[in-house]
Amino acid sequence: MKTSFVKDLKPGLEVAEFFVLRKKELKEYEGKRFLKLEMGDRSGRIDAVVWENSDQLYERAEVGEVVKVKAWVTTYKEVPQLKVDRMRKAKDDEIDLADFLPTSERDLKLLYDDFRRTVQTIENRYLRKLLDILMEDSSLMEKFMRAPGGKLWHHARLGGLLEHTLAVVSICQKAAEMYDLVDRDLLITGALVHDIGKVDSYSVSGFFDYTDEGRLLGHVVSGDELIDRKIRKIADFPQHLALKLKHLILSHQGQLEMASPVVPQTIEAVILHYADELDAKADAFSHIIKTQKIKGKKWSDWVRLIDRFIYFGEDEEEGKT
Amino acid sequence: MKTSFVKDLKPGLEVAEFFVLRKKELKEYEGKRFLKLEMGDRSGRIDAVVWENSDQLYERAEVGEVVKVKAWVTTYKEVPQLKVDRMRKAKDDEIDLADFLPTSERDLKLLYDDFRRTVQTIENRYLRKLLDILMEDSSLMEKFMRAPGGKLWHHARLGGLLEHTLAVVSICQKAAEMYDLVDRDLLITGALVHDIGKVDSYSVSGFFDYTDEGRLLGHVVSGDELIDRKIRKIADFPQHLALKLKHLILSHQGQLEMASPVVPQTIEAVILHYADELDAKADAFSHIIKTQKIKGKKWSDWVRLIDRFIYFGEDEEEGKT
Amino acid sequence: MKTSFVKDLKPGLEVAEFFVLRKKELKEYEGKRFLKLEMGDRSGRIDAVVWENSDQLYERAEVGEVVKVKAWVTTYKEVPQLKVDRMRKAKDDEIDLADFLPTSERDLKLLYDDFRRTVQTIENRYLRKLLDILMEDSSLMEKFMRAPGGKLWHHARLGGLLEHTLAVVSICQKAAEMYDLVDRDLLITGALVHDIGKVDSYSVSGFFDYTDEGRLLGHVVSGDELIDRKIRKIADFPQHLALKLKHLILSHQGQLEMASPVVPQTIEAVILHYADELDAKADAFSHIIKTQKIKGKKWSDWVRLIDRFIYFGEDEEEGKT
Amino acid sequence: MKTSFVKDLKPGLEVAEFFVLRKKELKEYEGKRFLKLEMGDRSGRIDAVVWENSDQLYERAEVGEVVKVKAWVTTYKEVPQLKVDRMRKAKDDEIDLADFLPTSERDLKLLYDDFRRTVQTIENRYLRKLLDILMEDSSLMEKFMRAPGGKLWHHARLGGLLEHTLAVVSICQKAAEMYDLVDRDLLITGALVHDIGKVDSYSVSGFFDYTDEGRLLGHVVSGDELIDRKIRKIADFPQHLALKLKHLILSHQGQLEMASPVVPQTIEAVILHYADELDAKADAFSHIIKTQKIKGKKWSDWVRLIDRFIYFGEDEEEGKT
Amino acid sequence: MKTSFVKDLKPGLEVAEFFVLRKKELKEYEGKRFLKLEMGDRSGRIDAVVWENSDQLYERAEVGEVVKVKAWVTTYKEVPQLKVDRMRKAKDDEIDLADFLPTSERDLKLLYDDFRRTVQTIENRYLRKLLDILMEDSSLMEKFMRAPGGKLWHHARLGGLLEHTLAVVSICQKAAEMYDLVDRDLLITGALVHDIGKVDSYSVSGFFDYTDEGRLLGHVVSGDELIDRKIRKIADFPQHLALKLKHLILSHQGQLEMASPVVPQTIEAVILHYADELDAKADAFSHIIKTQKIKGKKWSDWVRLIDRFIYFGEDEEEGKT
Amino acid sequence: MKTSFVKDLKPGLEVAEFFVLRKKELKEYEGKRFLKLEMGDRSGRIDAVVWENSDQLYERAEVGEVVKVKAWVTTYKEVPQLKVDRMRKAKDDEIDLADFLPTSERDLKLLYDDFRRTVQTIENRYLRKLLDILMEDSSLMEKFMRAPGGKLWHHARLGGLLEHTLAVVSICQKAAEMYDLVDRDLLITGALVHDIGKVDSYSVSGFFDYTDEGRLLGHVVSGDELIDRKIRKIADFPQHLALKLKHLILSHQGQLEMASPVVPQTIEAVILHYADELDAKADAFSHIIKTQKIKGKKWSDWVRLIDRFIYFGEDEEEGKT
Repeated sequence: MKTSFVKDLKPGLEVAEFFVLRKKELKEYEGKRFLKLEMGDRSGRIDAVVWENSDQLYERAEVGEVVKVKAWVTTYKEVPQLKVDRMRKAKDDEIDLADFLPTSERDLKLLYDDFRRTVQTIENRYLRKLLDILMEDSSLMEKFMRAPGGKLWHHARLGGLLEHTLAVVSICQKAAEMYDLVDRDLLITGALVHDIGKVDSYSVSGFFDYTDEGRLLGHVVSGDELIDRKIRKIADFPQHLALKLKHLILSHQGQLEMASPVVPQTIEAVILHYADELDAKADAFSHIIKTQKIKGKKWSDWVRLIDRFIYFGEDEEEGKT
Repeated sequence: MKTSFVKDLKPGLEVAEFFVLRKKELKEYEGKRFLKLEMGDRSGRIDAVVWENSDQLYERAEVGEVVKVKAWVTTYKEVPQLKVDRMRKAKDDEIDLADFLPTSERDLKLLYDDFRRTVQTIENRYLRKLLDILMEDSSLMEKFMRAPGGKLWHHARLGGLLEHTLAVVSICQKAAEMYDLVDRDLLITGALVHDIGKVDSYSVSGFFDYTDEGRLLGHVVSGDELIDRKIRKIADFPQHLALKLKHLILSHQGQLEMASPVVPQTIEAVILHYADELDAKADAFSHIIKTQKIKGKKWSDWVRLIDRFIYFGEDEEEGKT
Repeated sequence: MKTSFVKDLKPGLEVAEFFVLRKKELKEYEGKRFLKLEMGDRSGRIDAVVWENSDQLYERAEVGEVVKVKAWVTTYKEVPQLKVDRMRKAKDDEIDLADFLPTSERDLKLLYDDFRRTVQTIENRYLRKLLDILMEDSSLMEKFMRAPGGKLWHHARLGGLLEHTLAVVSICQKAAEMYDLVDRDLLITGALVHDIGKVDSYSVSGFFDYTDEGRLLGHVVSGDELIDRKIRKIADFPQHLALKLKHLILSHQGQLEMASPVVPQTIEAVILHYADELDAKADAFSHIIKTQKIKGKKWSDWVRLIDRFIYFGEDEEEGKT
Repeated sequence: MKTSFVKDLKPGLEVAEFFVLRKKELKEYEGKRFLKLEMGDRSGRIDAVVWENSDQLYERAEVGEVVKVKAWVTTYKEVPQLKVDRMRKAKDDEIDLADFLPTSERDLKLLYDDFRRTVQTIENRYLRKLLDILMEDSSLMEKFMRAPGGKLWHHARLGGLLEHTLAVVSICQKAAEMYDLVDRDLLITGALVHDIGKVDSYSVSGFFDYTDEGRLLGHVVSGDELIDRKIRKIADFPQHLALKLKHLILSHQGQLEMASPVVPQTIEAVILHYADELDAKADAFSHIIKTQKIKGKKWSDWVRLIDRFIYFGEDEEEGKT
Repeated sequence: MKTSFVKDLKPGLEVAEFFVLRKKELKEYEGKRFLKLEMGDRSGRIDAVVWENSDQLYERAEVGEVVKVKAWVTTYKEVPQLKVDRMRKAKDDEIDLADFLPTSERDLKLLYDDFRRTVQTIENRYLRKLLDILMEDSSLMEKFMRAPGGKLWHHARLGGLLEHTLAVVSICQKAAEMYDLVDRDLLITGALVHDIGKVDSYSVSGFFDYTDEGRLLGHVVSGDELIDRKIRKIADFPQHLALKLKHLILSHQGQLEMASPVVPQTIEAVILHYADELDAKADAFSHIIKTQKIKGKKWSDWVRLIDRFIYFGEDEEEGKT
Repeated sequence: MKTSFVKDLKPGLEVAEFFVLRKKELKEYEGKRFLKLEMGDRSGRIDAVVWENSDQLYERAEVGEVVKVKAWVTTYKEVPQLKVDRMRKAKDDEIDLADFLPTSERDLKLLYDDFRRTVQTIENRYLRKLLDILMEDSSLMEKFMRAPGGKLWHHARLGGLLEHTLAVVSICQKAAEMYDLVDRDLLITGALVHDIGKVDSYSVSGFFDYTDEGRLLGHVVSGDELIDRKIRKIADFPQHLALKLKHLILSHQGQLEMASPVVPQTIEAVILHYADELDAKADAFSHIIKTQKIKGKKWSDWVRLIDRFIYFGEDEEEGKT
C-alpha cells in the first residue's frame, strides 16, 4: 500500500514507493544511455531518471502500469526529480487504484443500487430484458462501475461514469413527468446506457487515457455496437424499438460536429442530449470551482476547453436572510 | 363574438364575421384602384379583395387589428377568397383574442399561482424584493401572462411564455437539488425572469409578430433593461448580486451566435441555459408531433429550422406489457 | 410490363399502365372526399386524382409500391393530370424495377465479377475470410448489387453502389502502388465495404428513399454494425485488425460534420476518404453534364447542393489536333 | 514619483521604487512560506520574491494597486528578479498613472474639446439634451477621458477610448456627407457613445484588466444600460429615437459572433460598424508597426489575434519623386 | 429608340418595341413547336410566346441581345404576356443601353473627371505611370465607365463601378489624413483599381450577368492579372511596389471565405477593405430604402443576402428642431 | 563541404563548419553587446552566441544564408550551444544545399524525365505548346526541380514539388481513364502546372520559408500569373482554353477557405482538387509515420495541423499468410 504521495516528496528523502508509470523513454547523454520517466499518483506527477541498468529497467513495466521504485528525491533545474535505483512492476494485491486516480466521493455501491432500482422501474419487457442482460454481464458491470465519465473535462474520476449516468437519468425522469408525449421507458433506458461505450474508450490502469478503440471508433459507436450485440441475444426484440434505442445512443452528442453520426430526431433523443449536457457542464463547472476557488479569488484561471473564465463570486454572499 | 372560422368558409357563403387583418395593400388593375388584404384567425388565413371604396377602407384599420367584415366567399385561381363589401375596426368588447391566436391548453390562472408560489420560496431578501416589485407591476404581469414564448418555433401561443417559464423553473429546481454549489435563490430567480424581455419583443394583437423593439434590441437586452430599472428601485441592492442576475438573463442563449452578448460564466448560468434549451426543444418537438402525426405517418415534414425530419415511430408501440 | 411512360402522357389519352405511387392523401372539396396522388416512373412524375371510391382505393397500396391504374389524361391549371378510375397493386411478376428507377448503364453481372476478382486478390487470411462470408450471404449480395450509391446526388441509380464501390477500389489500388506504407489488403477491403451500410439505408421499392434505419442510424453506422456482426463469426479475428477495418468505415466521410463519428487516423483511412470523394464528385458532375448539357448551353443550372454552377465549356473544343 | 523603470533594472542595484502589483501568491519552499509577486510599470514586468514577513506583506496590497518597494535586483535562472525587503501601498498623491500604463500621445484636453465641439453640432434637441446630460456627469466624463479603447488589441492606452471615439466620429462625418439617406445627428451621436460602456468594462488601476462587469455583461450592454438610464431622465424622449440610438450601440460589433446581440438593421448602424472596424484595425496595425519595425525587418512577429504576419515593406520606399 | 416600357404594357395593346431578350426556349405543346421567351427592359420583365415560325425566330437573336418585336399584349393565367408576331435583332444605333439597364443617377462624365483628378494627385512616379497607362487604354476606360459595381447587391447599375470606386477613394483619402503610417499614394492607387477586374466579370449587354471569366476566375484575380500585365509595360517598376499594389487588389475582400486568396497584411490593405465594405453596404442599404420605403412601411422585406430586415424608421422624424 | 552535423555536436568539441543562419539578434547583457544566433543544417538546430566583434559579425550574413563558423561547443541551461569565434559567409562552391535541407529520396533527374514524357503525351497543340515554352525556360525549370512541395506539412524537401506534381499527375491519369467526360489533355496539363506558383512562394536558401510574394500573393495566384504570362506568348491561344486551364490552377485548393478564390466548376477541376488532397495527405501521413514510428509506439505525437493523433498500428501485422 502507498504510504506517501508525490505532493509530499521533499528533496533529500529516500523513498520506496508505488507510482504509476506515465511515460518512459530511453535517451543518451554524452555517450551514456539513461532512462527518463514520468511517475505519478492521484496527488500529482514527478520526473524521474535511471542511470544504471536503464536498458533492463526499460523492459520492466509498460506505461500505465504501477511500479514500485526505490529512489532519492533530488532537484533538477530547481524542480524535484526522482533518481531511481530500483524499479519493479507492482503486484495486483499490493495496490489500490484509488491511490493513483481521482475517485468519486460517492459510495459506488449505493449508486449501483440506484442503478438497479431504476432498471426495475422499466415496464417495457424488451427494454427490461436488455437491461437485465447487461446487469448479468458482471465483467461489463465491473468496468461500468469503475470507468470515468471523461478523460479530463467532466466526471474524470473512478466511478464518474456511474455518477454521470444516474444524474442524467434523474433529469430525464423529471422530463418524463413534464412532457406527456415522452416514452418514459425508452428515455430512461437510453439515459442508463447512453455512455456505456466509455467502458471500452478509456483505460483506467494507473491514469485515464483513451484506448485504441476509444480513438479509432469513439465511445458513441462502441456503445452502439455493445447494445447491438446484447439486443441480438433477445429473441424477437422489436426492430423499431432497437432503432429508437440505438438512435438515443448515437445522437446523444447532439450535433455531428460533436461526433454524433446522426442528430436527435425523436423527442426522447433531444431531451437526453440536453440532460447529458446539463449534467456534464454542471459537473465540470463544479470541479473547477472546487479545485480553484480560494479566498479572495473571484475568477477561475482561463478554461481553454470552453474559452472563458468562470466566475466564483464574492466571498460574502449577499442578501442571505 | 366569432361564430365561424376561416377553415369553415365555403364558396357561396355570405358572412359577417371578425378576422384579424394580417396584410393590406392598395393596388391597381386596368386603371382601377382596389384593396388586397389577408385575413386570418386561429384556424387559418384567407385572401380578400375590396373593389369599392378601397381608399377609404384602407384607412379603417391597421395590420394586426381585428376587423368586422361583410363579405362573400368566392374563389380565385381555384382558391377561396373573400370579396369584401364592408369593413370596420372591431371594438375591444366584441372580440376574444383566443379566437385569433393559438392559446395555451393550460389554465393560466393556475400557472400564475405556481409562479407566485415559486416567488414565495425565494429567501434572499433582495431577490425576493425584486420579484415582489415585478409582481406589483400589474400591467407588466398582464402582458407576461399573455405573451407567447416565441413567434413560431416553441410555445407560440397565448400564455406560452408563462408555461415555458415555469417549465424552466421546474428543471432548475431539480438541478438545484442535484448540485451543491448552486445558489438556489439566484438560479430560480434567473429562471423566473430569463425571458421577461419577451413581453416587449412580441406583439400579440391579432397575430404574433416582432415589435420594433423585439427586432432592434432583442428580447435578451429588453429583459436586461427591464430588470436593471426594477433593481434601481431597491435601495442597497448589492451590486454583485445584480451583476450575477443580469448575467443569467444575458447569457441564457448560451452562445454569442444565438444572440447572447456574453457566454455563461457561472454554474447557475450554464444550468439555466440547458434547462431553457431542454424545455424549448421538447415543446417544439411536442408541437410538431401533435399537429402532424396521423395514422400511418412515421415522419414529420421537413423541419427547416432544425434541418431534419422528426420521427414519430410506429403506430403500435412495442413491448408495452 | 410497362408500355408507356409519364413523359409520353398527352391530354386526351386513356391509359392502363403501371406507375409507382409516390404520394397519397385523402382530401375534401366542397364536402366530397377525394384522393390526391402522385404517380411516377423513371421518366418523370404526374399528379393524379380519384373521385370515386376514394376511401377504398386509399387502402389499396402504400407509398413506394407499384400500382396498375386505368385513367384519363386531363389537365389541371394547364398541367397534365391523371383522372384515375381504377387502381390496384401490381404483382411482382408484372413489373421490372428498371422501368421505375434510373438504372446503371453498366452490366451489373460483369461489375460483380470484378468485385469477386478483387476479393480474390486479398492475401490477409482474416480479411479474405470476412469478404468470403459477406459474399456467401446471398440476400445481402442481392441487395448490394441493386442498391443505389446515393438518393439524389451521386450514383443515384440501381447498381450505383456497386459501380461506386469498384471505382473507389480502383483509385485505392493505384494509391496502394504509390505509397509504400499502405497496407494494401486493409485498404482494398475497406474500399470494398466502406458503403455497405447503404443496403439498409435506402429503400429501392418504386423510388429511392431513406429507410427508417437510414435516417436514425445513418449508413456509416449501419455498415459498421454489419461488419461487426460478420467479424464475430470468425474465430480469432485479430482485435486490432477489426478496429482498423471498422475505423475505415467509420471515418470514410472524412470529417465529423459529414457524419463520420471519427476522423481518419490511419494512412489507409485518409486515402479511402479522398478516393471516395473523388469518385462521388466526378460521378455527380458527370451526371449533371449528361442530363443538362445541350447545344449552346455553357453552364448548368444552379446546383444547390454544392452552391455553384457547373461549366460545360464551348461546344467546339479548342486545339484538338 | 517614479525615478526608474523596469527596463532599467540591472542586477546588483538597490531600489526604492513604485511599481504596480500585477500578481501575488503565497507559496512554500522546503517548509518555508514565501511570497511570489509580479511587478510592473509602463516599461515592462519583473518577478519579485519576499522571503521575510511574507504573510504580513501579502495583506499590504491587492493586485492592481501601486506599491512602493525596497528591493535588490538579483537574477534567477539568468533573468532579473527583485528580492523585496519592504513593501507598502502607495498613496494617491505619490503616483502618476501614466508611469504605469501606456498613455495616448495626444493631448487629451484638446481631444475633449473636439468631443465637446462635436456635441455642439447636434441639432436634434433630444439627442443634444442626452449628450449634454452625459457631459454634465463629471465622474463619468473623467472615466471616459482616461479609459483605454481596449485591453490589448487596439487603443490600449490611457485616453485611447477618447481617441478612438473621435476617429470613429470623423469617419462617420465623412459618411454623413456621402450618403444622403443618413440621419447625421443620429449617426454622430451613436459614434460618440458607441463604446461608452467601456468606462465600466476596464479597470485602469495599475494595469488594464476587465472588471467583473466587463466580463459578466460586456461593454456593449453596459453602454446600452448607461444610455437607457440617461434617456429616462429626459421627459418625452421619443421612444423610437431611443430604440434607434440603442440599436446603434447594441449592433456596433456588426455580428452576433462578435458579441452584438443584434445585427445592424439601419443604414446608420451599418456605417457605424465599419467606421469602428476601420479605426480599430488601423490603430492595431499602426501600433504593431510602431513597436516592432526596425531596420532590416520586413515582417512583424506572428499576430495571433488575427492569425497573420503584418508586412512593413522594404526600408527604402520606391518611386518617391 | 424605345417609346414604351414593360411596366406600361396593358392587355389589348399592340406594340412595336425594343426589349432585351432574357431567356429563350423552344418547346412543344400538343405536337406543335413554339418559342417561349422572356423580354425585359429597365422597368421590368414580361413573358412572351411565338407560335409561328418559331424555329426561325429562335435563331434570330441570342440571350442578352436587344430585339425589336411586333406583338400583342395578352394575358396568360391572369398575368400579361406578349404574343409575338415578328422579331429581329436591334441595330446598335437604334438603342440606348440605359433604356434596358438601371443607370447611375450621377453624371458619369463628371465622375470620370473626379477619377482623372485623383490620378493627378499621385506623386509616386511608378504608380502615376501605371494609372496613366490605364487611362490611355480607351477601350478599358470605356468599359470601366459603364460597368456595374455588382450584379444584384450593390451599385448594380451602369456606371455603378465608377461611383463605387470614387466613394472608396474618398473614404481612403480621409483615412490617409488620419493615420500617419499610411502610404497615401499606394492606398489611393489601390482604391482606384481595386475592383477593375469587374470590367471583365460582368456582361452589360441587355442585363447584368457574370461572364465566363467572372465565374471561372473571379473579379479579384481578373483585376490582379490586368494590373500585372500593365505593370510589365513599365520598365523598372519596383518589384516590391508591384507586390504591395497587387496585394491590395487580392486582399480587398478581407477574408478567404469572401474569395480573397490572401488576407490583408498591410495597413493600406486593411483600410481599403473596410472602406470597400462601408461603401458597398451603405449603397445596398440606400438602394433597398429607396426602392421599398413607402408611407406607413417601417421595415423592408426580408433581405436574404444579409439575413435580416432593414428598418426605415417612423415617417415622422423625432426631435428635428 | 560539411564534415559534421548539428546532431553530432558534443560539448567540448571545437568545430570549423558550415551552417545555415536561421536567426540573428543583437542583444545586451550587463552593458555588453552580444550576438544571439540560431544555426542549423538538415539534421537539426543549435543556438549560438558571439561575444567578440558582435556588431561586425552581425553584418556578415543574412538570415537564410550559409556561413562558415569557428566555434566551441558549450552548454547553456544544460543544452548544447555554440560559442562562435569567427564567422563568414560561405561561397557558393563550398556548399551543397542538400546538407542543409531535407532532400527527396527520389532521383530528381529520373522524375524530370517522367515530367518530360508526360508532356509528350499531350495532344492538344496549344497546351503542348504552353508546356514546351515552360520547359524551355531553364531558370524556371531549375527552380521547379528544386522547390519543396510545402514549408512544413507535405513534401517539405528539395525536389518535393516535382515529386508531388508527378504523383498528382499519376492519379489524374487514372481518373482520365475512368470518367469518359474528362478532357484528358486539359486535366493532365492542369496537374503538371497546378502548383507551379510555389517556385516563387518558397525560398530554399538554407531553410524553407515563405517569400514576400508567397505571403502577399500566395502560390495560387503566383501560378496563375505565371501561366497567364506564358500563354500570352502563344499567338491565338484560345481564350476559353486559357480560362479553363487557369480555373484549374485557381480552384485546386477546393474551397475559398483554403485560399482558392474560386471553387471547382468543371469536372477536371474537381478531380484535380481531390487528387491533390489525396497525395498531399498521403505524403504527410507517410512522413509522420517514417519519422515518429519506433518499436512499441502505436500512436504519433499530437499533430496540431490536423488536430489528431495518427495510428501506426501494432508492431506485428495480423493475418499475413
